[in-house]
Amino acid sequence: MSDLKPFAFQVWRVSVRTRTLKLEPVPTSWERLGGRGLIARILLDEVLPECEPLGPKNKLIFCPGLLTGHMLSSIDRLSVGAKSPLTGGVKESNSGGTTSLQLASMGIKALIIEDWPIEPVWSVLYLSMDGVHFDAADELAGLGVYDSAELLKTRYGKKVAISIIGPAGERKMVSAGVLNLDKDGTPSRINARGGLGAVMGSKGLKAIVFDPVGGQKPPILDLEAFRTTQKIYNKYLMDHPQTHTYSDYGTPAMVHLTDGLGALPTRNFSSGTFEFADDISGETMRDLILARGGEGNTTHACMPGCIIRCSNIFAGEDGKTIVSPIEYETVGLMGSNLGIREYDFIGRLNWQANDLGVCSIELGAALGVAAEAGYMEWGDGKRALELCEEIRKNTPMGRILGSGAGWTGKILGVERVPVVKNQAMSAYEPRAIKGMGVTFATTPQGADHTCGQTIRDKINHLLPDGQVELSLKKQIAMAGYDCLGACIFSAFGFAVAPPETIRDFINARYGWGVDNTILSELGKHTIKMEVEFNQKAGFTKADDRLPEWMTREPVPPHNVVFDVPNEEMDKIFEW
Amino acid sequence: MSDLKPFAFQVWRVSVRTRTLKLEPVPTSWERLGGRGLIARILLDEVLPECEPLGPKNKLIFCPGLLTGHMLSSIDRLSVGAKSPLTGGVKESNSGGTTSLQLASMGIKALIIEDWPIEPVWSVLYLSMDGVHFDAADELAGLGVYDSAELLKTRYGKKVAISIIGPAGERKMVSAGVLNLDKDGTPSRINARGGLGAVMGSKGLKAIVFDPVGGQKPPILDLEAFRTTQKIYNKYLMDHPQTHTYSDYGTPAMVHLTDGLGALPTRNFSSGTFEFADDISGETMRDLILARGGEGNTTHACMPGCIIRCSNIFAGEDGKTIVSPIEYETVGLMGSNLGIREYDFIGRLNWQANDLGVCSIELGAALGVAAEAGYMEWGDGKRALELCEEIRKNTPMGRILGSGAGWTGKILGVERVPVVKNQAMSAYEPRAIKGMGVTFATTPQGADHTCGQTIRDKINHLLPDGQVELSLKKQIAMAGYDCLGACIFSAFGFAVAPPETIRDFINARYGWGVDNTILSELGKHTIKMEVEFNQKAGFTKADDRLPEWMTREPVPPHNVVFDVPNEEMDKIFEW
Repeated sequence: MSDLKPFAFQVWRVSVRTRTLKLEPVPTSWERLGGRGLIARILLDEVLPECEPLGPKNKLIFCPGLLTGHMLSSIDRLSVGAKSPLTGGVKESNSGGTTSLQLASMGIKALIIEDWPIEPVWSVLYLSMDGVHFDAADELAGLGVYDSAELLKTRYGKKVAISIIGPAGERKMVSAGVLNLDKDGTPSRINARGGLGAVMGSKGLKAIVFDPVGGQKPPILDLEAFRTTQKIYNKYLMDHPQTHTYSDYGTPAMVHLTDGLGALPTRNFSSGTFEFADDISGETMRDLILARGGEGNTTHACMPGCIIRCSNIFAGEDGKTIVSPIEYETVGLMGSNLGIREYDFIGRLNWQANDLGVCSIELGAALGVAAEAGYMEWGDGKRALELCEEIRKNTPMGRILGSGAGWTGKILGVERVPVVKNQAMSAYEPRAIKGMGVTFATTPQGADHTCGQTIRDKINHLLPDGQVELSLKKQIAMAGYDCLGACIFSAFGFAVAPPETIRDFINARYGWGVDNTILSELGKHTIKMEVEFNQKAGFTKADDRLPEWMTREPVPPHNVVFDVPNEEMDKIFEW
Repeated sequence: MSDLKPFAFQVWRVSVRTRTLKLEPVPTSWERLGGRGLIARILLDEVLPECEPLGPKNKLIFCPGLLTGHMLSSIDRLSVGAKSPLTGGVKESNSGGTTSLQLASMGIKALIIEDWPIEPVWSVLYLSMDGVHFDAADELAGLGVYDSAELLKTRYGKKVAISIIGPAGERKMVSAGVLNLDKDGTPSRINARGGLGAVMGSKGLKAIVFDPVGGQKPPILDLEAFRTTQKIYNKYLMDHPQTHTYSDYGTPAMVHLTDGLGALPTRNFSSGTFEFADDISGETMRDLILARGGEGNTTHACMPGCIIRCSNIFAGEDGKTIVSPIEYETVGLMGSNLGIREYDFIGRLNWQANDLGVCSIELGAALGVAAEAGYMEWGDGKRALELCEEIRKNTPMGRILGSGAGWTGKILGVERVPVVKNQAMSAYEPRAIKGMGVTFATTPQGADHTCGQTIRDKINHLLPDGQVELSLKKQIAMAGYDCLGACIFSAFGFAVAPPETIRDFINARYGWGVDNTILSELGKHTIKMEVEFNQKAGFTKADDRLPEWMTREPVPPHNVVFDVPNEEMDKIFEW
């Protein structure tokens, strides 16, 4: 592969049909984009918006963020994207772990995986500075993510980054995600939302191995300025109280906040408060982990260099790891949303989601719908685990659940289904946090808290007033962060640091001479592209709605319905 | 009910919440509409296009056609409509049987059923000239359509018309239809398409009984002119060769035609020709019926007064009825599409569809998708019947199949699914009959042959040229017929009779002074309203497409793909 230029960013284009890699220069209009924004651009430029998401015309895209590659705290996230088989629209889902860092060190501006394999066989796509090969993956087919990861690490060594799908992705279940290794080699960092694992499955890839040998960190134009900015950023990040809360309690620290606001999804979103919220709180989790000792750890970094360390390792009574990490979203969707109060069950359900390779939000929501349809009793963790096994066994019930909450509701005849654009809501009851409701309804990504979180803003969350403006502000910022490769929690630093911080990072790294508006410019540009893709795919304002029942059924304890006017929401992106 | 005016057409509005009937005068803009056109008008006027189809805001509407009520041959069809839970768009599905005749004799211009019941109990809605009552239907819950009909006839007498749902409709499965009694009291005439049975189920109604005692035929303004026109119409209808073909062989007479054109759906639309087409032909069916004798009958009328008599009674070796009738669509979707060549299996599958209360097209297509996913072997009629039993038992697999072909494909991970707007195609391979492909793609109703049949037109069906124009012509005519209450086969008379025939019927009946363009005016107006509803419900041109795989996979024996340009199809309704 004589034309490989390891230290320049290039586009890596792989055809699973011809099993070839083509290296291409980065088109001008892609240069100043990264992560979510670059995925939107590539989808618009190359993927027919009307195409069948699991067909040969869809493309699976991996992009590092603009600032990825330097172990900046919380800024090495991996964006994976495609036309979503869950929503039918634009999809970017980002994750922590080590994959993005290695992409950047290999000079991969974007990895674009195209077409269908000629034969229905499973392969490992192996990418290195020497090129590509497709390795047979027969022995991995049907294996869970954890076992697959062990085999792959044995085969390819411990220095590679790996993206894997589980049985759900192989079976093209549209709740399937793509799992990546964390810094300790655990395959727990998931590009979870929107069924990207099913797209990877449709390409015949069980795993992608990124071997960085021969690569190097992306160059920094002005290293001194970069380090100075990093110091400022780190200081603000470290000084933020949330950084310490999350370090101590992990993201389940949110439980008391959402429950207090009446926004903790409980029993399939029929209530916003859970009588056993204490049992599933971050405080309880911490106490449990500390009391049990062994492999458990209350704080853990998913990416090298992260100083927040919101991840954790949750161990059982025997001190052996049950799962790492337990996140708030999983606690909300697989705990209170199912009426489950025991962390051991939540942890095991989370492990199941990871090992099957599905989004725990989507699966938790689907299980909630199944419970509503009578397939489990509220609070019955054992039964919930059995239902997860149905996915593993690929039974009809498993296939239903693996297809996400929306289709589970359609098939089981349940109207109370918490989805927008067929994607399950994260663990924020949108009737009680109405700004989040606007985000869920209007983001081109389908219901997703990471597209614009409003819970910490000073507003009366129960009233419709001002929620559209607030959501817009948050959506623009988040889309911007998602272009940088920055975790949602990087905002603990950026939002309070001097406004020039992001500008300074970009200019030190690239020398582009951008100004303070760079974050919102990236965000706005990204959202516009995503809206354009969705429109071409057939979306209309009718898709920018919370489910009708949420406008009709008041949710306890505040007994509020969702009442932000459609007319206001319809204008959200008219700036 | 002192304000009841039995001999004037009125709007009958029933709330299942308050259990009351309101009689209202017919709004001016509704007066000159009937059947499918009136349903589109009412949906636009009263139903929020974005609403949840199985929620309280949807309405279930029953309308006779403009010419219904006089036992004109093939012109007493019943239109039932709602926002479809299968397609998410406008839906009218019409059927034969006796219901529409009784609606007309009761002076029901439109029956509009609103809201949700307060309690989840099953009721029979009983309508008579004395008003309405809701009778408990506990003993009917879960019963098949045939047993339900027997019980209802015992309870309400043999003179009533009855619309019934089966277990599928009760469970809100979106392939569920509404079944009506034929002239002999058999509940076999189904408003099949689009899940209207599920809408009826969501309203808590197991059955609707129309008791016509005290009603009378709608008045005819100029009886002599009406009878003269009727004679002309009947003559042309009787003279048409197809009338005799269908009388002799039933609609399965189509098998040899479609197989010859390479358009007989075979093994989940993977081929357009079936090596056992002879075994499932109309000729074979006729021979079987005649040879077996007993209750079998090669010709039978579904509506009083029909002179085509395309229906039949299919009996087993013991001479006992297996099902009545067997139609071509069922033969195509439950025979060749499943690789099944035995009429006894096709008949029993048809009985299952009727008794469960589902559309046999939708179920046949769903079974084909399930077979493709490995849940049955091609040609295994016994297994197909077992899968139908899963619907009856309400198992997860049954719920999948009962949700129609589109969702069956989504859940089972099959891309080769023959649907448009999530509704299964009828038994015409659209790659080989491209005009039908245009109809499937563009009609606001979702894939449906009765929205514009092009198979008998002089055109090279394999080429894309001229198909959009042809489909448009047929779609307009069919939408017009559907406003009259006229069966698709009435065209055997109308299409060759003098052009003023329909005009003369209308003017003799109502004295409106319409001209010869009345059929196309009704058709165009109807389609425009339907397109408007769908647009407001969130449909775009991206929904007016055949599945992508049909544009990619050539279908034997002619090895053609669907290649009518999207740009041409997108302009079809711009007249």
